[in-house]
Amino acid sequence: MPSSPKIRPSRPRLVSDVAEWDMETDVAIVGFGGAGACAAIEASDAGARVTLFEVASASGGSTALSSAEVYLGGGGGTRVQQACGYADSTEDMFQYLMAAGGDIADEAKVRLYCEESTEHFDWLVAMGAPYKDSEYKERAIMALTDDCLLYTGSEKCWPFRDVAEPCPRGHNLEVEGDNGGPLLMKILTEQVEKRSIQVEYNARALTLIASEEGEVLGLVVRIDGEERNVRAHRGVILCAGGFVMNPDMLAQYCPRLVEGPMPIGNPGDTGTGLLMGQSVGGALLHMDQHFITLPYYPPSSLTYGIFVNGQAQRFINEDCYHSRIASRALDQLGGKTYLIVSADDYDHPSFMNAPIVGTGETIEELAEEVGLNSGMLRHTIEFYSEHAARGEDPLFHKSAEWLKPMAAPYAALDCTLGEGAIYAAFTLGGLDTRPTGEVLTTEKELIPGLYAAGRTACGIPRTAAGYASGLSVGDATFFGRAAGRASAGRPPEV
Amino acid sequence: MPSSPKIRPSRPRLVSDVAEWDMETDVAIVGFGGAGACAAIEASDAGARVTLFEVASASGGSTALSSAEVYLGGGGGTRVQQACGYADSTEDMFQYLMAAGGDIADEAKVRLYCEESTEHFDWLVAMGAPYKDSEYKERAIMALTDDCLLYTGSEKCWPFRDVAEPCPRGHNLEVEGDNGGPLLMKILTEQVEKRSIQVEYNARALTLIASEEGEVLGLVVRIDGEERNVRAHRGVILCAGGFVMNPDMLAQYCPRLVEGPMPIGNPGDTGTGLLMGQSVGGALLHMDQHFITLPYYPPSSLTYGIFVNGQAQRFINEDCYHSRIASRALDQLGGKTYLIVSADDYDHPSFMNAPIVGTGETIEELAEEVGLNSGMLRHTIEFYSEHAARGEDPLFHKSAEWLKPMAAPYAALDCTLGEGAIYAAFTLGGLDTRPTGEVLTTEKELIPGLYAAGRTACGIPRTAAGYASGLSVGDATFFGRAAGRASAGRPPEV
Repeated sequence: MPSSPKIRPSRPRLVSDVAEWDMETDVAIVGFGGAGACAAIEASDAGARVTLFEVASASGGSTALSSAEVYLGGGGGTRVQQACGYADSTEDMFQYLMAAGGDIADEAKVRLYCEESTEHFDWLVAMGAPYKDSEYKERAIMALTDDCLLYTGSEKCWPFRDVAEPCPRGHNLEVEGDNGGPLLMKILTEQVEKRSIQVEYNARALTLIASEEGEVLGLVVRIDGEERNVRAHRGVILCAGGFVMNPDMLAQYCPRLVEGPMPIGNPGDTGTGLLMGQSVGGALLHMDQHFITLPYYPPSSLTYGIFVNGQAQRFINEDCYHSRIASRALDQLGGKTYLIVSADDYDHPSFMNAPIVGTGETIEELAEEVGLNSGMLRHTIEFYSEHAARGEDPLFHKSAEWLKPMAAPYAALDCTLGEGAIYAAFTLGGLDTRPTGEVLTTEKELIPGLYAAGRTACGIPRTAAGYASGLSVGDATFFGRAAGRASAGRPPEV
Repeated sequence: MPSSPKIRPSRPRLVSDVAEWDMETDVAIVGFGGAGACAAIEASDAGARVTLFEVASASGGSTALSSAEVYLGGGGGTRVQQACGYADSTEDMFQYLMAAGGDIADEAKVRLYCEESTEHFDWLVAMGAPYKDSEYKERAIMALTDDCLLYTGSEKCWPFRDVAEPCPRGHNLEVEGDNGGPLLMKILTEQVEKRSIQVEYNARALTLIASEEGEVLGLVVRIDGEERNVRAHRGVILCAGGFVMNPDMLAQYCPRLVEGPMPIGNPGDTGTGLLMGQSVGGALLHMDQHFITLPYYPPSSLTYGIFVNGQAQRFINEDCYHSRIASRALDQLGGKTYLIVSADDYDHPSFMNAPIVGTGETIEELAEEVGLNSGMLRHTIEFYSEHAARGEDPLFHKSAEWLKPMAAPYAALDCTLGEGAIYAAFTLGGLDTRPTGEVLTTEKELIPGLYAAGRTACGIPRTAAGYASGLSVGDATFFGRAAGRASAGRPPEV
């Protein structure tokens, strides 16, 4: 069949319009990133015929572009946690993730994720993922050494430390530098290749094929310029990423991301998977939510500083996770954010690129250069320092290890979005799914034959304020596997 | 045909499954509230046969439960604005509404609304709506006298006063007390009855009827316990309200509204219209957004007080619109909000019901009773008072008319959500529509034959932070009319 210009992901092809099936499989998977790879491996290991369709010429997806940290723990601890002396509990992990997710957390997913987290770690190891039994003790976004374990969320910070016993759960691969993503995808790709999984690269998924009753029977893909009708007897799994590369969808749902923040993702993150799911009734959840961050550490010494808004007020405990700080910063009235530091603690930030917009031997001098009210700034700094000297932060409960009085001279970094500081972002909204990956309508009805995982689904990470590094790849690989098993176990429709 | 339990708004009926048409019309309208009434009148006046389906036994919808204020102006002023000495400009109105809407404002809708706003006022008058040429000069949520004009947004407040020349645009009907809604719906219902518009009460819209190509051809309604297939030759207009009465959808999209805030709406606000639109590919926009308010005035003297968060910091200019204050209050870290007032300015709030949780001859006494840091509260009050004495608010730019130093004794009202203060809310997310009411997919494609207006659509009011009283009924009646005209003008499909 020649390529038709009219076919769109937002309208399914009715099976009555399918003259013939060009390909057949049990489980068809859209997207060969972390979620798709894990779905394919598990579906294949469960005995299903599997075909992976990837729009790019190679596997990888956004997982390959990430550090591939995974956020895992509970159950007495992963092998690495135990080796480092952490007997992590499932309940602490659950309570932490529920508190971090706030009122939009998906309790069923969080529960399953925590309960089966150590098993998932063991599975990744069995696939060949190397994790060293060591801890990286610095405050950092990722381990740039080959060390494994790291605090990557706000577990040790108020208010979360009062909710659950803190434990580091970020697991980094045994590789130097920010090379975890390529390594993990190399390992998973080799596992896919070992199995009788059919992989079609340069294959663009165009739309789903559905019955008039709404069951998903397959999908249309374009390979070598030709449309192919693919019959998937057990199910289609959408693992096609988020929509951070689709400017129209960003303008509609996350206008703040259209200009300014650096998008985190691969060119295929155009929302096609979300549109395909929506076209058969799948509910899109929390489309306005996004991860956004101001990677202001390392150096961790900047944590001794204080963030203030345009009113020269503090607004957050500065020791918490960087995207939580970014999220609160962007919510401040007027949107202005400055990081005030003592010159003693200043060291050039590795990633942030925020311009220094003021320095001063006195607070008044600093305030004038920055354009803040000097009386308010003086009070904010003095109040902070006076209490910090006693190891206290009565307003925001910053941990004692990061409290010390601020001494002159001072410097102010402008962290306002759009003023030079690097922000980075990706989307968190996606299809509503059960923990099995089964896609749901707004009325919580099942769409037979359709599954989603990774950022095509609305998963464990749902807000920047509650994010921790490792949640996206953790969620994508974990729920990718679940979707693979669920679809493989679905009785085939004839 | 007997009633089928399986029919759901989230799945359209395919026209191939329609054995016969039970009713025929040109324009079928779901919902006889403000939007539906205006759509019906305009479609009928444009020459179309119109049928209105209302699930209740009478017209009214949520418009009848409201004050029926309409937010109108521009174009040199409405008759009332001119009589009261305000030569409102379209550009000022446009700039204000765009600033209030922030980065999710719909520019095309705002533009049209501002340009045709005075014409809409004249149309309402022509329908019989009485507006007195008078202004209610108090700071109030609505005019409880029969006066008309009122500031109902944040036009006079920072930062909006710097963006556009302020002008009062809330128009209240000439009726004593909060009786505008019943009066407006009585007037509009009489206008419907004057025309050859068929009205079916006790008629529940079940689902849309669509062609395989995705055109909307009609809908299924249940009347007297029986399903009827209704053919709508020119279009279906969904004016079925929002979803504040659907606990499942609230839990999914606006969990904050599930418990605590009082829902503003009628029992039919169950989201059926949104689901029907979504079932044929309509995009649901900004489903997490909602109006939420803390109606803390009148008495306006409470505006001399200051709102503080759990850190004893101010966070807003207290002279702005009540839902803007509520929105910022709920965004504060920890969610705590207190209104601190001098006893001199205290008068019992009319609606708010917030408990007094502290009083004191000194700030320290007050702080201890409330549980706030006394050093911070002292600074906040002293800094505020010191500048207020000079008519200044360097941090939040509260207008000079509401600035005066705070004198002992003090009282603190706990305005924290869930602690007794009355919050009220309704949903603002809805179908993406053109200014004509035509419903769009996520890919901005038109769905032929489908229109939406009122809170079933995502309209001019999109955030609590930018809301003004009169925007919902203004938007519903204005864009209801537009949808009526557009559908009536659509060439009939045979």
